Amino acid sequence: MIRTDLAMEAGEMSKKKIPGVEITREEAAEGISRVKVTITSKEGEAALGKKIGTYVTLEAGGLACGDAVLDENCSKILADEIKSMAGDNIRGGVLVAGLGNRMVTPDALGPYVCDMVFVTRHIHEYAPDSIDERLGKVSAISPGVLGLTGLETGEIIEGIVNRIKPSLIIAIDSLASRSMERVRTTIQIADSGIAPGAGIGNKRKALDRQTLGIPVLAIGVPLVVFASTVAHDLLEAAIDKTNAREDEMQMILSRILNAPGADMIVTPKEIDKVVKDLARIISDGLNIALHKNLTLEETRRYMH
Amino acid sequence: MIRTDLAMEAGEMSKKKIPGVEITREEAAEGISRVKVTITSKEGEAALGKKIGTYVTLEAGGLACGDAVLDENCSKILADEIKSMAGDNIRGGVLVAGLGNRMVTPDALGPYVCDMVFVTRHIHEYAPDSIDERLGKVSAISPGVLGLTGLETGEIIEGIVNRIKPSLIIAIDSLASRSMERVRTTIQIADSGIAPGAGIGNKRKALDRQTLGIPVLAIGVPLVVFASTVAHDLLEAAIDKTNAREDEMQMILSRILNAPGADMIVTPKEIDKVVKDLARIISDGLNIALHKNLTLEETRRYMH
Amino acid sequence: MIRTDLAMEAGEMSKKKIPGVEITREEAAEGISRVKVTITSKEGEAALGKKIGTYVTLEAGGLACGDAVLDENCSKILADEIKSMAGDNIRGGVLVAGLGNRMVTPDALGPYVCDMVFVTRHIHEYAPDSIDERLGKVSAISPGVLGLTGLETGEIIEGIVNRIKPSLIIAIDSLASRSMERVRTTIQIADSGIAPGAGIGNKRKALDRQTLGIPVLAIGVPLVVFASTVAHDLLEAAIDKTNAREDEMQMILSRILNAPGADMIVTPKEIDKVVKDLARIISDGLNIALHKNLTLEETRRYMH
Amino acid sequence: MIRTDLAMEAGEMSKKKIPGVEITREEAAEGISRVKVTITSKEGEAALGKKIGTYVTLEAGGLACGDAVLDENCSKILADEIKSMAGDNIRGGVLVAGLGNRMVTPDALGPYVCDMVFVTRHIHEYAPDSIDERLGKVSAISPGVLGLTGLETGEIIEGIVNRIKPSLIIAIDSLASRSMERVRTTIQIADSGIAPGAGIGNKRKALDRQTLGIPVLAIGVPLVVFASTVAHDLLEAAIDKTNAREDEMQMILSRILNAPGADMIVTPKEIDKVVKDLARIISDGLNIALHKNLTLEETRRYMH
Repeated sequence: MIRTDLAMEAGEMSKKKIPGVEITREEAAEGISRVKVTITSKEGEAALGKKIGTYVTLEAGGLACGDAVLDENCSKILADEIKSMAGDNIRGGVLVAGLGNRMVTPDALGPYVCDMVFVTRHIHEYAPDSIDERLGKVSAISPGVLGLTGLETGEIIEGIVNRIKPSLIIAIDSLASRSMERVRTTIQIADSGIAPGAGIGNKRKALDRQTLGIPVLAIGVPLVVFASTVAHDLLEAAIDKTNAREDEMQMILSRILNAPGADMIVTPKEIDKVVKDLARIISDGLNIALHKNLTLEETRRYMH
Repeated sequence: MIRTDLAMEAGEMSKKKIPGVEITREEAAEGISRVKVTITSKEGEAALGKKIGTYVTLEAGGLACGDAVLDENCSKILADEIKSMAGDNIRGGVLVAGLGNRMVTPDALGPYVCDMVFVTRHIHEYAPDSIDERLGKVSAISPGVLGLTGLETGEIIEGIVNRIKPSLIIAIDSLASRSMERVRTTIQIADSGIAPGAGIGNKRKALDRQTLGIPVLAIGVPLVVFASTVAHDLLEAAIDKTNAREDEMQMILSRILNAPGADMIVTPKEIDKVVKDLARIISDGLNIALHKNLTLEETRRYMH
Repeated sequence: MIRTDLAMEAGEMSKKKIPGVEITREEAAEGISRVKVTITSKEGEAALGKKIGTYVTLEAGGLACGDAVLDENCSKILADEIKSMAGDNIRGGVLVAGLGNRMVTPDALGPYVCDMVFVTRHIHEYAPDSIDERLGKVSAISPGVLGLTGLETGEIIEGIVNRIKPSLIIAIDSLASRSMERVRTTIQIADSGIAPGAGIGNKRKALDRQTLGIPVLAIGVPLVVFASTVAHDLLEAAIDKTNAREDEMQMILSRILNAPGADMIVTPKEIDKVVKDLARIISDGLNIALHKNLTLEETRRYMH
Repeated sequence: MIRTDLAMEAGEMSKKKIPGVEITREEAAEGISRVKVTITSKEGEAALGKKIGTYVTLEAGGLACGDAVLDENCSKILADEIKSMAGDNIRGGVLVAGLGNRMVTPDALGPYVCDMVFVTRHIHEYAPDSIDERLGKVSAISPGVLGLTGLETGEIIEGIVNRIKPSLIIAIDSLASRSMERVRTTIQIADSGIAPGAGIGNKRKALDRQTLGIPVLAIGVPLVVFASTVAHDLLEAAIDKTNAREDEMQMILSRILNAPGADMIVTPKEIDKVVKDLARIISDGLNIALHKNLTLEETRRYMH
């Protein structure tokens, strides 16, 4: 089983039909594909290395490249998926958790999204009479990363959940991908929470219904590929095509990747801008989903 | 009673000796004064508008102006005050809370301090055998502000405190001052926690032993004066010196301060740099205080 | 003569009609006033302390507060004024100069505008065949400030002008205002260039047709008031209303403003956001004016 | 001839001794190697693809990893090389040019260095009597990149040089490397200027004595490897070791690297911090070299 954070990649790697795993693909809008992987059995879990649940992947080659219509369509489809997975929990109090490290650009997606989510819980609490009834009850937190806080993300979220009792968590996270084609083009929404070990910066503990007692949606976006992954795949393909010996390949690999003192990543040169654009797409999606009949225009105006 | 976040200003405003209030002033180092206000009675509380407790104010005209020796001395004196106020609690697990809004420069002091605190709690938790025994058990969180999270600072801190059980909180906050002379020159450390309503950006609820169940030290730094305060004082002085009528003055004041859509503040032009420098002074102080016999050099090296 | 960077303020201070000065005021759009001051005589120059030329001031109370329609209307009116003042020079090669210091928030307007101007000169130079004929020939430079470069802004601009020979300069600058009501609500466009001594951060030398040999439009936006100005005006008003003695007032003033080591300014608390929003309004105006029949949408798409 | 911006890499690729090329290697300080490549003939130029001149490379595995002593030693050795290459020109007026794009983290090294260079030209110009005689005459400019200014870096520098007549340029640039081992560990100083086509973000025109009329030192630091380079090398090694066919390899390569809409780069995950640290090391080196007998402490104090 090859490790990937995307259920869809795991599904595609498997060549034969797996019982308890269903994969559908459709065109969700012009330029946006929607792949839905449903895992319903323990056998499916084992085969894909993913927990039982629904995993929707939106794919759009031109995402976050300045095509305002495409980006906005993606926000709307994302909103539909969130509403569909959240069900009634969406009106009871939603805590958005922006995982990752604001100081490390490719890991800053979650915190950036939180900066742009339209939060309203405090208005419900302190001025319930004045509130526009279309507004959901939304709060948002960027807990930071273990190395900078000394605290597990899960500990912080759990502490807050116990204190404020939301009915749903939506966690946003940058992912490391297996493939450069996924970077900046893919958004995954899953109803099974954050798996342990995911994320770029940090090996996280699980954040899910089991650990937190309430449903956890996870939105994940591949933003980097580890250089070692690229090199590994490249050599594997080479071995496949040739009669090269694997030990020789390993030697080549280790010689080339031996960069002292650094986790090397593969990322778009303009990653600073990519992360900001993707954060806007996702926060727009959240703002549409979490408030009722509010247009993007209205949300943006409200936020001032 | 005129409102100020600095016990020392409150003390100075009173012309006569108040029972249950003791004020001492000394030269703590070259260029650094230390004023200690001790409030021991309900009568003192009422007179100064401050809770029973100890309030130490360090004053240095040239602070955060590039004098490395002065800044470092200030960090050391701050460290001594923290150790003295914290007592044994300092070794049991300390949570540093950086209050304020990272996006609003004069309110960003707390989050910036958190970025530079040397956190170690996770090493104690996950690698207890490997840890340098001089290291304290430190964690840090910047909870954000109500308008961006939908969550009261106190709710977040309380949630985390209940989950991780530290023995001491140290909260860092930007203050609004009554006087431009205080801006960038003054650091207050108090053992009575954060009073309700303090801070620049946000009216906070109290953070203290009563609300959190553990001792709370508060480090506060005046970084702005509200324009209305400056104008008010100016006119009050004018009325005092002349036989002007107060209603005329109020008219002048309201005409001049009528700036639509904005809380006007008075602040140093180079506030971006001032906040960063003060954050370094305070985080250096914390790093000296919270770990035993660790030099600044060693802390800085550890943090990489 | 009281010093102000806004011709309109200078005009308003004068109570009687000045020969060679014409002032008109009109409603340019809902919520936006347009005041035009035309100075045509030496006598007018002397009376207003402004050089012969045209000074248009757009005023909108709700500017940069999240009202997208108002902001966009303001960009469009600004574009019309630029086109009207620039005349044919606009098609010959325009250099946008973003004055000020990127590191000091209230002085960063000019550099931020440059970041968002759609530059095209290099496409004309290197790919003339492929260029959309509606595109003007636009370049942009943020020269930095004297204290960080060791170079006068004028020296840098002059050097570049001599090298690339544009037919028009448009300089963008943050201004210090006399009045808090102007901050964030006012944009001035003038065809007489940058006057010596203007700006927040830096006393600049003149940038005008005389020093550079080509026409210079100046766009200026009041973003701060010096604390000393506020206090001065306040006391002057007090003296006016009372029989206070001026020397006593001066004493009060100097005592209150005596803040060591800092130029104190009065500014909106959320200045970080205000500057970004105003930079967008102005760069949108430039992008509409400098390219022919290009919508904002198209410009934004082009910029990616 | 394989393309690299480092003369030393070009030298090492050649297996046999080339006439007109001399390479020496020594330990410059603990943990810092110094490789000097001197090219004195046209034959050497052709063989290494580098112009006649001196190229010194400092190599230190642990650079910019928090070892303050190593970093400071590196600054000092860099200062010595600069002084040695600059000769008397160093006292006549030095313009530091920070090439690259401040908005793209791995390309921001040059602008960041400019932010920290201690500039003094304006003091010489405007207050010559008050100046500390140890201070050199230093100015600094970050010209931006073609895509954001519409201006060639060389046009801007040439314009300024013609206007202010310095006697020496020192250009700072991020480089793309051939090898991940070079990233963050290597600084090259050359007296032959900036070669055309170098740099990460931008294909630059040459900046050298021929184009500018004065000597140009270039300081270059490898900060990224293009993903295509890594993959290419990897496959070349594989072909070498196996009897794979090159066309098959090319197919693998193009399949794996086919990432839409993005130049993929390989870079350390914490690149934000790496660039800042390297900018400090280089600006410290410049500040030592460009002023006489000034300690780092003094420079830092002066800069406030």
